[in-house]
Amino acid sequence: MHFSHRVDVSRPNAISLAELQARRDGVTLTKLNDSNPTRHGLAPAGVPGVYEANPRGQSAARRALAEFLSSGGVDGDADAPSAIDADGVDPDHLYLLSSTSEAYSWLMKLLCDPGDAVLAPKPGYPLIESIARLENVEAVEYSQIYDGSWMIDIAEIEGLLDESEADATAPNIRALVLINPNNPTGSYVKPDERRRLVELCARRDVAIIADEVFYDYALEPFDGNARLAGERGVLTFALDGFSKMLAAPHAKVGWIRVSGPDADVAEAMARLDVIADDFLPMSDIIADRVPELLGDAVSQTNRVRARTRANLATLHAMLETDDLGVVSVLRAEGGWNVLLRFPSSVDESELVLSLIRDQHATAQPGFFFDMTVNGYLAVSLLPEPQVFEAGIRAVLSAVRQMVLG
Amino acid sequence: MHFSHRVDVSRPNAISLAELQARRDGVTLTKLNDSNPTRHGLAPAGVPGVYEANPRGQSAARRALAEFLSSGGVDGDADAPSAIDADGVDPDHLYLLSSTSEAYSWLMKLLCDPGDAVLAPKPGYPLIESIARLENVEAVEYSQIYDGSWMIDIAEIEGLLDESEADATAPNIRALVLINPNNPTGSYVKPDERRRLVELCARRDVAIIADEVFYDYALEPFDGNARLAGERGVLTFALDGFSKMLAAPHAKVGWIRVSGPDADVAEAMARLDVIADDFLPMSDIIADRVPELLGDAVSQTNRVRARTRANLATLHAMLETDDLGVVSVLRAEGGWNVLLRFPSSVDESELVLSLIRDQHATAQPGFFFDMTVNGYLAVSLLPEPQVFEAGIRAVLSAVRQMVLG
Repeated sequence: MHFSHRVDVSRPNAISLAELQARRDGVTLTKLNDSNPTRHGLAPAGVPGVYEANPRGQSAARRALAEFLSSGGVDGDADAPSAIDADGVDPDHLYLLSSTSEAYSWLMKLLCDPGDAVLAPKPGYPLIESIARLENVEAVEYSQIYDGSWMIDIAEIEGLLDESEADATAPNIRALVLINPNNPTGSYVKPDERRRLVELCARRDVAIIADEVFYDYALEPFDGNARLAGERGVLTFALDGFSKMLAAPHAKVGWIRVSGPDADVAEAMARLDVIADDFLPMSDIIADRVPELLGDAVSQTNRVRARTRANLATLHAMLETDDLGVVSVLRAEGGWNVLLRFPSSVDESELVLSLIRDQHATAQPGFFFDMTVNGYLAVSLLPEPQVFEAGIRAVLSAVRQMVLG
Repeated sequence: MHFSHRVDVSRPNAISLAELQARRDGVTLTKLNDSNPTRHGLAPAGVPGVYEANPRGQSAARRALAEFLSSGGVDGDADAPSAIDADGVDPDHLYLLSSTSEAYSWLMKLLCDPGDAVLAPKPGYPLIESIARLENVEAVEYSQIYDGSWMIDIAEIEGLLDESEADATAPNIRALVLINPNNPTGSYVKPDERRRLVELCARRDVAIIADEVFYDYALEPFDGNARLAGERGVLTFALDGFSKMLAAPHAKVGWIRVSGPDADVAEAMARLDVIADDFLPMSDIIADRVPELLGDAVSQTNRVRARTRANLATLHAMLETDDLGVVSVLRAEGGWNVLLRFPSSVDESELVLSLIRDQHATAQPGFFFDMTVNGYLAVSLLPEPQVFEAGIRAVLSAVRQMVLG
């Protein structure tokens, strides 16, 4: 596997080696230059405890999280879609951090030199492109194609990897970003796609970054769905967090789970430790609450699922009974958003402008997510039922006005 | 002022402009694509409230912080060394984040394209070089010279800026990092140095990144000391946080204060908002506690000051009465660490190895901080008095053994 030159992994000096040897010999060394005030009885009463400063995050929080994930996560069932590999989750393969955004940033630093690229889904949420740009990384789009349901254009990915290898001026592709399920298309990575992509990435030394924050929010499921987290066939970084699992974007708890061939995992983690050690983002104030908050994961996921599924049913009913009948909803397998499709004679940007002007409502048109053709609107399934219904009525009314003139 | 190309500041599209106009007209728009569950009654009981998702951080926490800083900070006195400018601190000029490390990362993204450089102090703490490397930025060292007290080699800085301008192959220098006081030298930026550096940076379009986390920990103060935070003469990003102010590195509360010429501040903040919006690192769980924790700042700073000053007095007394008399301490104006100097015939790396072997203690030799000559050891003033004294005795004993053989 290829790693960037951004991380200094120079050999430890004689002092570090002697410190390491002392630790191995069971000797506790007094650190005369220790600047951690919590180890000298100086922590404030409001934030007690001794700060561990562990690059992967507080070990108690990681153990609680690993236990939760090992027991099957939200669905708590080894046969459930979110089942993980039989060995369970090793807390030492988890990195706690503030968000999946931060995870993307760290992983791009880990894998990409300036001008290197990651493959990112199109349509997709524009955040990845923005973070890539901040990290001097190019986000090269691969297509998902809709044909009743979404599929990944694997031939295109293979072509992009070929081009990257053959053309010295093309950027080197270091990672494949899979959003499982993707936003706003709601499509999961299918078992057959996964098999082919893992094989392809392993062959081309491309790591997988699997963003699975929406994983547990299935809407219209299919057989054999599974998390990429824990994948052994290729170096895989699976991202998740409380933002979606607990409907708590304000908690700022995210994590990376590292898996893959042992040698790749070991080297990746040694380097990721250096990055994590420079930032150490997880607060003890939050980490202390992780075990307790994990206790709310099941009820929160169920609560949000009930909301999104009920709103989706309402949406289907409203579209079926709409007498103009020109608006439809694309099959959404999971997530919090769906894509509405309307006649391509209606300009999606004009539609949103009319919503703002006439209905005091706004939405994101397809081009915001790099949809290749006009005629889409992304809509959230989260609002309270009446608010959601009123929103859909506003869209139907705006489309009607633009179609009928 | 120069800004990097990493931040996408493309013109807002027609939809964004219409949304902005609606807001200006006092119209509240229903967001049909709002994916923030806390705005739809779905936040978990354990983390209640509606998530604001403000790129600069939670406004209540920023207001509390601005009020604290406006009242003179820890020393609460407009005549005290930490006095701020008369207008007070605008909460809108503050960015809350998890650490000064994260602040460095954001500011390098804001100011530097790949291969651009920041000037960083030598001797200095190696973290800046490591973060710069992760951000594809070069850390170019400028010297501080010891002559009874430390002074910044401004002529060298001017030369480096000249070279950067004249030589197309030299990296473009985008920022000057000033650690005030510096670690581990403990030296503050002197009033005359500040005047000359601000003038120089303003003339060369170089921003100042002022890391003032140790500012309130004066040890051997001098007249006319002042924070760089709030400097108007050049675009200035001042960093501080609870890590040192509250002796709470585990709280993960840091901030950037932006100041300088109005136009530069406006453009810098528009771009920094884009970076901050991609990461949104500050948790509501922490932000809710910021006002309460600020209430402990004075007592915590005083508590740690009492410790560091008492240990420094102990150190002076021990060195004065040491009969070999070959170890001295460099004048430390502020901070938590001091540099011990011993005869250059003693190899500093060998000294630490002997400490590990014979005294079960370890420390960081001068080369760790890029000291130009051998013969230094950095020592923390934080330990409990007995632990500190034992540590110094261990050093004196190790030096004695190496000098006398």
